[in-house]
Amino acid sequence: MSRPQEFDTTEALHHAMRAFWLKGYEATSLTDLLAATGLSKSSLYATFGGKRDLFLAAFDAYRQARARDAHRVLRQQPARRAIETFFHSLFADVNSDEPMLGCMSINQAVELAPHDPAVRQRVVEDLQQMELVLTQAIGRGQQDGSVASLRPARELARLLVLAFPGLQVMARAGYTRQQLDDAQQLLFTCLDG
Amino acid sequence: MSRPQEFDTTEALHHAMRAFWLKGYEATSLTDLLAATGLSKSSLYATFGGKRDLFLAAFDAYRQARARDAHRVLRQQPARRAIETFFHSLFADVNSDEPMLGCMSINQAVELAPHDPAVRQRVVEDLQQMELVLTQAIGRGQQDGSVASLRPARELARLLVLAFPGLQVMARAGYTRQQLDDAQQLLFTCLDG
Repeated sequence: MSRPQEFDTTEALHHAMRAFWLKGYEATSLTDLLAATGLSKSSLYATFGGKRDLFLAAFDAYRQARARDAHRVLRQQPARRAIETFFHSLFADVNSDEPMLGCMSINQAVELAPHDPAVRQRVVEDLQQMELVLTQAIGRGQQDGSVASLRPARELARLLVLAFPGLQVMARAGYTRQQLDDAQQLLFTCLDG
Repeated sequence: MSRPQEFDTTEALHHAMRAFWLKGYEATSLTDLLAATGLSKSSLYATFGGKRDLFLAAFDAYRQARARDAHRVLRQQPARRAIETFFHSLFADVNSDEPMLGCMSINQAVELAPHDPAVRQRVVEDLQQMELVLTQAIGRGQQDGSVASLRPARELARLLVLAFPGLQVMARAGYTRQQLDDAQQLLFTCLDG
């Protein structure tokens, strides 16, 4: 009954990603994945190989989309506003009707990274990538005067990256939009001197 | 075959806590819990009620132990050293032969808090408690001169709490002891002005 030629692989991957993103790896069952993607078991296995392979493919699709978003947002002027917009955008779904997803990479740092080298390597790459793009944006902010120049851009970027999982934890623990905004404003004072 | 009178409830709870702490809630099976506690299935159910009840009891035992440790460490003098010792102690198991456990409350903020109000409430309490004890320690540091007084103790405490999950993510993603120490030193510069 399976019709492996008649579905869109990218779309199926997107739906699988949402399922894993929402519930994590362990709590997402094969039944969940079949319901999310609309695939038959045989199509899913033929196309993606199995639960873990599907997870890694979905995780990589997520990571690529987030990296593209980060580059787009952080290119804006002035740099300080771009940095603030970037952080706000990461928690755009807080207090909406949708369940809180947060950052899949942070979730996976907690869930799978300690036991799974392939996941761990991806999480480390994501943290390094975030540090790199923030260092560049802060460097531009130090040029255009929107960020203080007392400390090296790299150090300030590291502080922002260090605080990012904390914002994620607050969001997943049910803090309000206002509490998240206050925490971010407090964090951004590091960019003032 | 079960002998419900002949085991130590506190010890069984401790072993269950280790199992949940290491693998998270979903990935810990009933088989894991029976192996960890040494209990029969009927004893486990008779004493603790089931997997979720056992989890909540184990989580609460963990939280009480951590709160006692925090109070003990943060009482030391001078306050600045007490704060640094407190953070170092939270990541004492990094790069040891033991698997990285990190903070069970942060792990649960990611895994269960978004779906489970009882867990969410505990995570929020833990973050608030951490902010409170750090505010008190920073206040003492501002009195004894080991922490700068430019910013209110409460704000500095919030920054430290905000950075704490980031240290946890670094630890679980396999960063080295040295990288963790560097990140903490960077964070503590917030206490200098």
